[in-house]
Amino acid sequence: MRWRIDLRYDGTGFHGWARQNGLRTVQGALEEALRTVLRVAEPPVVTCAGRTDTGVHARGQVTHVDLAAELTGRDLLRRLNGVLPEDVAVTAVTEAPAGFDARFAALARRYVYRLCDDAAGWDPLRRTEVLRVGRPLDVDRMNAAAQRLLGEHDFAAFCKKREGASTVRALLEFSWERVSPGLLEGTVIADAFCHSMVRALVGSMIPVGDGRRDVDWPATVLAGKVRDSAVSVLPAHGLTLEEVRYPADEDLAARALQARQVRGEVHRG
Amino acid sequence: MRWRIDLRYDGTGFHGWARQNGLRTVQGALEEALRTVLRVAEPPVVTCAGRTDTGVHARGQVTHVDLAAELTGRDLLRRLNGVLPEDVAVTAVTEAPAGFDARFAALARRYVYRLCDDAAGWDPLRRTEVLRVGRPLDVDRMNAAAQRLLGEHDFAAFCKKREGASTVRALLEFSWERVSPGLLEGTVIADAFCHSMVRALVGSMIPVGDGRRDVDWPATVLAGKVRDSAVSVLPAHGLTLEEVRYPADEDLAARALQARQVRGEVHRG
Repeated sequence: MRWRIDLRYDGTGFHGWARQNGLRTVQGALEEALRTVLRVAEPPVVTCAGRTDTGVHARGQVTHVDLAAELTGRDLLRRLNGVLPEDVAVTAVTEAPAGFDARFAALARRYVYRLCDDAAGWDPLRRTEVLRVGRPLDVDRMNAAAQRLLGEHDFAAFCKKREGASTVRALLEFSWERVSPGLLEGTVIADAFCHSMVRALVGSMIPVGDGRRDVDWPATVLAGKVRDSAVSVLPAHGLTLEEVRYPADEDLAARALQARQVRGEVHRG
Repeated sequence: MRWRIDLRYDGTGFHGWARQNGLRTVQGALEEALRTVLRVAEPPVVTCAGRTDTGVHARGQVTHVDLAAELTGRDLLRRLNGVLPEDVAVTAVTEAPAGFDARFAALARRYVYRLCDDAAGWDPLRRTEVLRVGRPLDVDRMNAAAQRLLGEHDFAAFCKKREGASTVRALLEFSWERVSPGLLEGTVIADAFCHSMVRALVGSMIPVGDGRRDVDWPATVLAGKVRDSAVSVLPAHGLTLEEVRYPADEDLAARALQARQVRGEVHRG
């Protein structure tokens, strides 16, 4: 049976999602927890929707795993949380509907990047998930610049180059909000992301927000279609995968088939 | 000149507010930062509104300090944040109005205790400031029980005993809200607090919320006027000093005089 497992994690202590020998990763922690709970020799393989990089957090990561064991979702949730380390937690375990694939059936991923631009709004309790910047940022300018990047484009200018992988993505939303004095949230939604794309997109906004660059500049960089060294890739710790969106159950299989055909390996935040 | 310094801290790594030889404390960190910034041999003495215990956090701590140095508030803020460790931050530095005393002029302290009662709502990114409890809690029952404690009472039943110190306090607000699935916030406002009082008050609510005790039980404990071992003092890390309230500037001096006469040493969270 296929299970959908939703999870949250503080990415600070993990070398990202993907299992790597000798390194502490979220995939490794979850697969080891499953091995312990199921009392099997080999850990089952878990597939996720957003392969977060080292230091990136998640509040809405979605995964799937195929298990032979007879268990209820409730039991699995309780037992997994009993053995997982304190920086990762399972928030839901449900029987996956037919055709569900955490990665390929996803319609979109929503990431939020958090910035603090004022000492009056800095909160040490949230320092693991907010990036501090030295100058005040103009949200209206950032929204105007972000708006010009929406739609389907070749985002090569904002992606780490990988041989043979497409960098065409559909940017569905990119918007900024000052949620409290000093705290800005940048929401970025796309069908999928190339490697380091969110952090480069957000990085192109800061010089617009603080006035060093024109509002048109990120769109000009995009049109160049080559990785631009003038764009900073921001630190990972300000970035959180907040949500993964799926189609209605009856459309899951068709979506997964389509995504498999269109995309290769790359779909990271 | 007297300065008002507002600050926030993650209490995890501090042995509370009050300076203690050989231990890392918030007062010690702030006074050392002042010493460095002012280039003086002896650190100036800082007075705070809420002497938080080991592990208790603050988003709205207020302090004052008397300095001879010629500085602007803006400079002091920037320089202090430049030398303070990452778990404490100054959010505002202003010239104190006449009669201001961070401790004695305060009208009330607002604390929030955060509880998570559902694995679906647990957020590892906030694990340093939320206490996880094993059973679902009924907010309506907790509000009914909390309501019965309001007003001026001898809170000896919820206080660590100290010789000669009064345990009469005015509880101005005590209310519970489910702010998101799984996350409860308990707001406690009083003119001042005895030692461990907030954590004992909140501790008396959990057996009401999970059904083990009647709604009347905390009020019965209060009426007993002696420390009751059936009340658990909850862990410090769920508690945050969110705000300190002061009267209008023209009433500051009168308020400070009154508080000095009424209260002795004890005013902790």
